[in-house]
Amino acid sequence: MRPQFGAPANSASLRRHNLALVLGAIAHRDRPTRAQVSGLTGLTKAAVSSLVDALVAARLVVAGDPDRGLVGRPGSPLGLDPYGPAGLGVEINVDYFSVCLMDFAGAVRSERVVPCDNRRRSADEVLRGVSYSARRVLADADRYGVEVAGLGVAVPGLVDLGGVLRRAPNLPGWEDIAVTETLCSLLGQRVRPASCDNEANLAALAELWFGTEPSMRDFVRVSGEIGVGAGIVVGGEIWRGASGLGGEIGHVMIEPHGERCSCGARGCLEQVAGQEALLRAGGASARVMSGPGGPEGSTRELVRRAVAREAPTLAALERAGTALGAALAALVNLVDVPTVVLGGLYAELAPWLTEPVMAELRARVLSQAWAPLTLAVSPLGGTAAVRGAAGAVVRQILADPAAWYPEMISATQSGEQ
Amino acid sequence: MRPQFGAPANSASLRRHNLALVLGAIAHRDRPTRAQVSGLTGLTKAAVSSLVDALVAARLVVAGDPDRGLVGRPGSPLGLDPYGPAGLGVEINVDYFSVCLMDFAGAVRSERVVPCDNRRRSADEVLRGVSYSARRVLADADRYGVEVAGLGVAVPGLVDLGGVLRRAPNLPGWEDIAVTETLCSLLGQRVRPASCDNEANLAALAELWFGTEPSMRDFVRVSGEIGVGAGIVVGGEIWRGASGLGGEIGHVMIEPHGERCSCGARGCLEQVAGQEALLRAGGASARVMSGPGGPEGSTRELVRRAVAREAPTLAALERAGTALGAALAALVNLVDVPTVVLGGLYAELAPWLTEPVMAELRARVLSQAWAPLTLAVSPLGGTAAVRGAAGAVVRQILADPAAWYPEMISATQSGEQ
Repeated sequence: MRPQFGAPANSASLRRHNLALVLGAIAHRDRPTRAQVSGLTGLTKAAVSSLVDALVAARLVVAGDPDRGLVGRPGSPLGLDPYGPAGLGVEINVDYFSVCLMDFAGAVRSERVVPCDNRRRSADEVLRGVSYSARRVLADADRYGVEVAGLGVAVPGLVDLGGVLRRAPNLPGWEDIAVTETLCSLLGQRVRPASCDNEANLAALAELWFGTEPSMRDFVRVSGEIGVGAGIVVGGEIWRGASGLGGEIGHVMIEPHGERCSCGARGCLEQVAGQEALLRAGGASARVMSGPGGPEGSTRELVRRAVAREAPTLAALERAGTALGAALAALVNLVDVPTVVLGGLYAELAPWLTEPVMAELRARVLSQAWAPLTLAVSPLGGTAAVRGAAGAVVRQILADPAAWYPEMISATQSGEQ
Repeated sequence: MRPQFGAPANSASLRRHNLALVLGAIAHRDRPTRAQVSGLTGLTKAAVSSLVDALVAARLVVAGDPDRGLVGRPGSPLGLDPYGPAGLGVEINVDYFSVCLMDFAGAVRSERVVPCDNRRRSADEVLRGVSYSARRVLADADRYGVEVAGLGVAVPGLVDLGGVLRRAPNLPGWEDIAVTETLCSLLGQRVRPASCDNEANLAALAELWFGTEPSMRDFVRVSGEIGVGAGIVVGGEIWRGASGLGGEIGHVMIEPHGERCSCGARGCLEQVAGQEALLRAGGASARVMSGPGGPEGSTRELVRRAVAREAPTLAALERAGTALGAALAALVNLVDVPTVVLGGLYAELAPWLTEPVMAELRARVLSQAWAPLTLAVSPLGGTAAVRGAAGAVVRQILADPAAWYPEMISATQSGEQ
């Protein structure tokens, strides 16, 4: 145990730091000029210009508006280069998988959603299917002329800090699956580095990065799918607990003697407020239940029934909202976050869920008088997790661009800052 | 927003850092010698000697065994000086309050526990009573010849990050109470700096600092009193959430249509597993229920009934253990900690609670196969929170001794390190 004082600040580490600082200022502002970046960062205009030049040369930043042919003048607005390094995102869920390509500016350039019942297929079989779709998205990347900088994978289960999927309660037999290793061996070196995380965590990060409230730094996002998961964000960071296995709100007990859950216990939230429980209680046929609904299909069926004011569906939504509210109240009482975001299925069903959820939160959250609670609806639809997975790749580069392009440090070492 | 590189490391900040490093090595090891401290910290023996001399002069460290008259030889074992700055701890709970003096080496030198029904008294009245007992403990400090370095207060309610008690569900009318300000104005400057925190948090910190498992860095400690609270520790730090209001496990819903709770909601854990719920279900008389039981009285009554195998009490404990297990499973599924510690009332009742608690944890915690869960019993008895409150004062000095004794930096500025 030697004392740690941090590495000495030399000119290379200063430049590395400043590259990230300038890139961050450009990413988080609406097209600032070099002068504005200088004001935001405290760096001299000369230093900013030199750093911006390096970022432009690395295809991370674009000066001017390329669509209007106004490129590169000193007063030009700066933005992230949509032809910079892109992220490949994969989401594997219970009744669909999806793959997307996110460009460096955060726009989805290509997306494929494949409805399929993954409960009937082995992990190997599903991952081969994913790799087939991913190859087509990679071909789109080639067509657009963007480089793929890495792969992010979202899965509906417990992922440990090493990125291994330990257990997916709704995918029987998926235990200890090295998802990223398998995908990398199927897709090749170009998708490395690869990472894997729980879909509720990545959906919450997507909310943080691409949601409508950029100032929202503390919240829980609850995702309704066949499973129900929560991503907890505090101080702009996802909460991972001691081993990365938290956020399992779907298995909070709601009714001590309730129905048996896929996890083996009784009365879990999922058995009242999960997608299948809602469809079943609403009287959906076995065909709808087991058919390839995908993120849209089953949700559309539920919304159709609710809009048609079918009594069993309305009763099921009322019961689900009350249960969801009680579980969220437990989470807020334990973890203390000021905002709850309804995502996935719950965003679509918000017109019917908001009232019973809020009634339970109001009745049960102790801190409300001093830390008022907000209920929000995710604007990201069913694509939050896959966008979070692809976004994680891009964010990694934003956080430390020089790790991606070491030439930016060595190139113009002298002169500035 | 100027770039932040941290303050430049000059010799004063290095010395400050090294003083804390050496003091920490002495605090966390069993009486190391100067040579061992040098090995632990990577500092030269000469530097360690100079730093130790400063710490000894400041009455933070003692060399040798003062009880045997073996003081100050170079090979002497080093320890924290029990005559160094002491912490004054206060715990205010629903049916008692207590005050203790903890010396710099972590031993309790003086302790007063006063049973009283604080629900019938105003905050002002209770705080005056506390200050009366605290003055007697301060007189003990004078008698021992130790300086009081500050005050820590534990309260049974929601404390915001500014240290204000916002709400105590079991103490009607205690809202927005500046507990530390009131106590400081009653006790004078000598008890500053003062801080206030939730009793479950401070009890969990006491477990971290003074429990039997010094390697335990990730756990939840659940405290059973009239209220039920949880302190969540991850990576050796207490989890405070967005506004410091987390850990309220007593208000996790256990039975959707259960009894009305002091918080206003129905079916909270507290109404099944809190001290009064247990006494009531066990058939205790109104006299026992409202009488001044203190932390010992009511617990002793429950243990007596359980040992006598009174059927209503055994049934109540079984039901409480099952409810507590379900609430703890929710917490572990959401927050992900590998160890649950039973504290307060639950430590005394562990022989009857362990089995139903473990049965629920085994049935409900998803991650068990990969992150095995341990159930432990706190060795700290009913005094954990007050020890945590006093310990917080001492820990503050351990973390940055030079903030307490700035002379240690200026004294021997040159020569070493």
